[in-house]
Amino acid sequence: MSTPHSLSSLFSPRSIALVGASDDPTRIGGRPLRYLRASGYAGEVFPINPNRDSVQGMPAYASIASLPQVPDVALLAVPAAATIESIRACADRGVGAAIVFSAGFAETSEEGKVMQQEITSIARESGMRVLGPNCLGVFNAQTGYYGTFSAIFDSAFVQPGPLAIVSQSGAYGSHLAHLARERGLGISHWVTTGNECDVDVAEALDWIVEQPQVKVVMAYAEGVRDGQRFLAALDKARRNQVAIVFMKVGRSQVGAQAVSSHTAALAGSDAVFDAVLRQYGVYRARTTAEQLDIAYAASRASSVSGNRLGIFTLSGGFGIQMADDAEDAGLAVTAMPASAQDELKRLLPYASPNNPVDATAQALTDLPLMSQFIRAMLDKGGYDLFAAILGSGPASPTFADSLRQAMAEATLDSPDCLKCLTLSAPAEIVRSYEAQGFLVYQDGSALINALGALVRFRAHFDQVGQTDPLPAAVPQLSIPQRAMSEHEAKSLLARAGIPFPAECLIAADQDPGAAARQLGFPLVMKISSADLPHKTEVGGVRLHLKDEDEVRQAMARMLESVRVKAPDAQIEGVTLAPMIGGGVETIVGVFSDPTMGPVVMFGLGGVYVEVLKDVTFRVAPFDQQEALRMIREIRGFAMLEGVRGAPPADIDALAQLLAQLSHFAAAHAGQFDSIDLNPVVVLPRGEGVLALDALIVPATLTA
Amino acid sequence: MSTPHSLSSLFSPRSIALVGASDDPTRIGGRPLRYLRASGYAGEVFPINPNRDSVQGMPAYASIASLPQVPDVALLAVPAAATIESIRACADRGVGAAIVFSAGFAETSEEGKVMQQEITSIARESGMRVLGPNCLGVFNAQTGYYGTFSAIFDSAFVQPGPLAIVSQSGAYGSHLAHLARERGLGISHWVTTGNECDVDVAEALDWIVEQPQVKVVMAYAEGVRDGQRFLAALDKARRNQVAIVFMKVGRSQVGAQAVSSHTAALAGSDAVFDAVLRQYGVYRARTTAEQLDIAYAASRASSVSGNRLGIFTLSGGFGIQMADDAEDAGLAVTAMPASAQDELKRLLPYASPNNPVDATAQALTDLPLMSQFIRAMLDKGGYDLFAAILGSGPASPTFADSLRQAMAEATLDSPDCLKCLTLSAPAEIVRSYEAQGFLVYQDGSALINALGALVRFRAHFDQVGQTDPLPAAVPQLSIPQRAMSEHEAKSLLARAGIPFPAECLIAADQDPGAAARQLGFPLVMKISSADLPHKTEVGGVRLHLKDEDEVRQAMARMLESVRVKAPDAQIEGVTLAPMIGGGVETIVGVFSDPTMGPVVMFGLGGVYVEVLKDVTFRVAPFDQQEALRMIREIRGFAMLEGVRGAPPADIDALAQLLAQLSHFAAAHAGQFDSIDLNPVVVLPRGEGVLALDALIVPATLTA
Repeated sequence: MSTPHSLSSLFSPRSIALVGASDDPTRIGGRPLRYLRASGYAGEVFPINPNRDSVQGMPAYASIASLPQVPDVALLAVPAAATIESIRACADRGVGAAIVFSAGFAETSEEGKVMQQEITSIARESGMRVLGPNCLGVFNAQTGYYGTFSAIFDSAFVQPGPLAIVSQSGAYGSHLAHLARERGLGISHWVTTGNECDVDVAEALDWIVEQPQVKVVMAYAEGVRDGQRFLAALDKARRNQVAIVFMKVGRSQVGAQAVSSHTAALAGSDAVFDAVLRQYGVYRARTTAEQLDIAYAASRASSVSGNRLGIFTLSGGFGIQMADDAEDAGLAVTAMPASAQDELKRLLPYASPNNPVDATAQALTDLPLMSQFIRAMLDKGGYDLFAAILGSGPASPTFADSLRQAMAEATLDSPDCLKCLTLSAPAEIVRSYEAQGFLVYQDGSALINALGALVRFRAHFDQVGQTDPLPAAVPQLSIPQRAMSEHEAKSLLARAGIPFPAECLIAADQDPGAAARQLGFPLVMKISSADLPHKTEVGGVRLHLKDEDEVRQAMARMLESVRVKAPDAQIEGVTLAPMIGGGVETIVGVFSDPTMGPVVMFGLGGVYVEVLKDVTFRVAPFDQQEALRMIREIRGFAMLEGVRGAPPADIDALAQLLAQLSHFAAAHAGQFDSIDLNPVVVLPRGEGVLALDALIVPATLTA
Repeated sequence: MSTPHSLSSLFSPRSIALVGASDDPTRIGGRPLRYLRASGYAGEVFPINPNRDSVQGMPAYASIASLPQVPDVALLAVPAAATIESIRACADRGVGAAIVFSAGFAETSEEGKVMQQEITSIARESGMRVLGPNCLGVFNAQTGYYGTFSAIFDSAFVQPGPLAIVSQSGAYGSHLAHLARERGLGISHWVTTGNECDVDVAEALDWIVEQPQVKVVMAYAEGVRDGQRFLAALDKARRNQVAIVFMKVGRSQVGAQAVSSHTAALAGSDAVFDAVLRQYGVYRARTTAEQLDIAYAASRASSVSGNRLGIFTLSGGFGIQMADDAEDAGLAVTAMPASAQDELKRLLPYASPNNPVDATAQALTDLPLMSQFIRAMLDKGGYDLFAAILGSGPASPTFADSLRQAMAEATLDSPDCLKCLTLSAPAEIVRSYEAQGFLVYQDGSALINALGALVRFRAHFDQVGQTDPLPAAVPQLSIPQRAMSEHEAKSLLARAGIPFPAECLIAADQDPGAAARQLGFPLVMKISSADLPHKTEVGGVRLHLKDEDEVRQAMARMLESVRVKAPDAQIEGVTLAPMIGGGVETIVGVFSDPTMGPVVMFGLGGVYVEVLKDVTFRVAPFDQQEALRMIREIRGFAMLEGVRGAPPADIDALAQLLAQLSHFAAAHAGQFDSIDLNPVVVLPRGEGVLALDALIVPATLTA
């Protein structure tokens, strides 16, 4: 095994070999060469074809071995059957990275799977990085490096820019590049990972979000193989203030089945993937159109200082529609100051001067008036975001130029406000407004949704470095790899800082009187046994025990009942704990996700979880601030704020418990399959939180 | 008052007068004349301008009075101040309809409001119909009648087609027409209603959905004035199988404020409006782009036979994405039969033959293979809907023509399946596929969402005529216009068929023993008084009374407690009723919406309503089938199906209660402000449903 090479040779090679180079510029072995020659790529390019002296007018080489120098990257345009031999030749020569275009590997057959594993082995042993197989390759628009046979470059290359694209699917990645180019967006790097025998989406993302020119990434995946690497890449992106707009497919049942029959990615749970994206501030796009709309905003916008939006319209209806959308997107449509409203009313009595500011169609026939309105909004409205609804005016044959000039002048002196337009016009008119610094959308809803996304990206970036210290250090414990009684599980978790009510274990032959007196009444009694996770069914739970006599009688009956109903169970005795009254019942759990590792679940108890599936997730570990965001995410959150006259619950203590548990789970990953705290009672504010039950399922019991 | 004229003179005039006709073809008074002359309108056009002999080369008239004949419609391109005089002249001459373009009426000032009321009065007295003021008018593409000054016809007119547009906002209506034209959609009628001093969106809709060429309507409103007319129009649309795609704005708080400051429409509650659209099968679009996407499908699709969708793709990723969307849209992505899958596997071992059927990029280089795949899907898949994902292939310079031909041949013999494509290509290529009968979208999610809408439109059309008879006739009663005790409210509603537990009213000086014995124990006792809607607070409710003695004691204490705590209340006595155990608690209510009339509300009891606002609405009356759809709409519906081992609840009986109550409410509209049944206990299936409390607030008490 060698240390794997950096991905720089894959993404920014100084020299390129094309194995299987073809004279036909429309074939897989011909396109990359044609692109590299036409795009201005400045490095060395070596066509390899043992049957020809020249390819597309360039001298051809017989083999990798016979090249005059070691290329940084080798593009393999050879059939699946010939791939292993080529890969080995590249590795032997010390090539930095290879890109395998051919399909016919793990996605096709068992035989293909074996071949793919062989490629992986060669990569691991040599340190050479391999992209694919079954991928469309890479491009780097800055250097003109087109290591791809994607047909979308038949029409045009791509301008460099702050957008990058990382896609498991070649076809989807090509489609995104095509749409971005049509939208006038520049692209810095583009990579499609296909079957991911070595380089995967996570690692490509990790490399790309370090590139200084990259501000936003559009990503596509059906699943990720290495959850930890993926989480690290998302964390790095957030720290580098790179916005990620993700299309994750396979959320439906049929979709998930199709994923598994497609590139055989480890799909994992879509709900967990979704929670991960939310946790790291990644925007999960629901449609490709939305993915483009958000990426466009993140590419073109400078910085966003807040969420106050001023809406300027020439027609009331559009303004109302945009105000509706703004509320959904979490933007604040704050009113203009009263004095500024008076001023606008004086200028045009018909106007609505509040916000949306409606200057009516009148303004289109009186552009200086329009300028005055817009300038008043920008100067006096205190807006972070400004959107003007221009309709088809900018395409008007009669006043397009004067309108554009008026817009430019009106908005010149307000650099801190992000200025956006909706309009319906041909691309060249859109570009001219963009050149003046405007974000331009045809659909107002798409614009507002994108502005909401920008505000949330900003909030997530700002969270970096704001993490608060753990309330209590988590000790490194050892989780026994055998069934544990509730009492043992509680003792273990209590050492990790999880709060439980006081509890006494009474051996079967002991008298419970003294312990009962000490704890105080009323009490709850439970049978204590590692063999009885379901206690109620064997008569192993008694509530509301009011005095010592009741406790003694209950203990005798419980032991008798359990002896009859579960004769083989090993009994430690019974536990006694005070009854806890009041508070809001919640459920907290941790499970070990095969991809992402320990995942913490939180929900309200009872019907909320069972009927409404009102639960949310976070990968461990996380801090108390993140736990608060998690808690606020559930639909029934109002229950914790106090309803029907109930006092507000101790949400801070609940957040502390969640954070504490997440750190315990992360520190003991691999040792458990699941941990359940059900219920966790959240007491009134200031009184804390108590877990009333605990169940730990160790890893070995389910493996 | 005269009988109002039909809207035919407004929408299909044989002759048109243009008051304020201008020689300048870019002015409000010039555009309509220019349009009418260029569009091929075959009727008479009379420009009116007292200062000129001719306008745009046509002879001009001095006034309406001096016209050689009475025009069907008069377009008024005069300032607000001159409008009333013109309107009166039109009415005096017997003109059928007038369109008022000018702004400056109710949306502007009190003075404007008075002027607008004057127009309304003239319309009501004369029977002449008035559209506007503050509107952009009407067009009818079939006849070339452009009674509008909208600037979007500067570039081109509109082809006739099955789409109609009804918009309160002129600017929004123009924008929709512009987008539809760009999308290649033909439009039959277009109307913008503005301030709606006479003709409103509801009446325009009502007229338009009767036109035989109209299959789909895009509508826009901020609110409706006449709820009953609106409901009647939606009902007619459904009966005529006309799909309506509605943009209703003002759902947010800021948006609703902006509505009220805009055209001053009676906004009503957005939640009720939303429920009305759902009830009548209208699609409420969230964005303008979505509105277009749905209208496009409804315009172009023939008929939809079911919801089974076959997906053909050349790239796994796109297929998975589409399958995800299909599940969200309620479509069934059913698998290909096993034998057909085997056949496809033999044709191409790399293929995924299930559904989505993935023929891989291979199929693009082997079009006969692609045809075989598609034909197998259409012949053997049993699909109602077929979607093929073609990407940018159709725009390829090398194989665009052969691909289009292959697609046409492959799909020729399956007329019953609706065939759709996603592709990225210039408009002329899109049109060529459309000409072959395909629906064409760029975005797959937009396509699938639209197909889901078509399936739901179909389902709603099919519901017409399936209404079931009422379970019991609703007698015409009279709701007393004074406060009523719970007992009196129950008695009234029981006569209307609402089921309550048996209940006895015991006068204060009577002994409750005999009644208690007859009812059986345990019992619930409540104070009976029209003056005490909140009984618990005065000690007026006692539960779990186990025998006669308890009942007697409870009655004495209750009467004493109430005498102390509410000395002024008039006491009828107490009621006794059996305690009802088990079942699921729900809440049923009716309130009188200012626009839509009586609206029935349904939700689960307790925290579901208070925390989750998990309630739904229907306008009264409706039948049991509609009630079942209403019940299934709430998020917590699973509670009624039985959770935690509880038996399924008697949903049919609940639906019967809702339908019965809705008919009672409709028959007594105007007599009450609200009716509350809280709780309504739904017993296990077969055991019925019981309302445990009733409160009626008569209309006069809140008016």
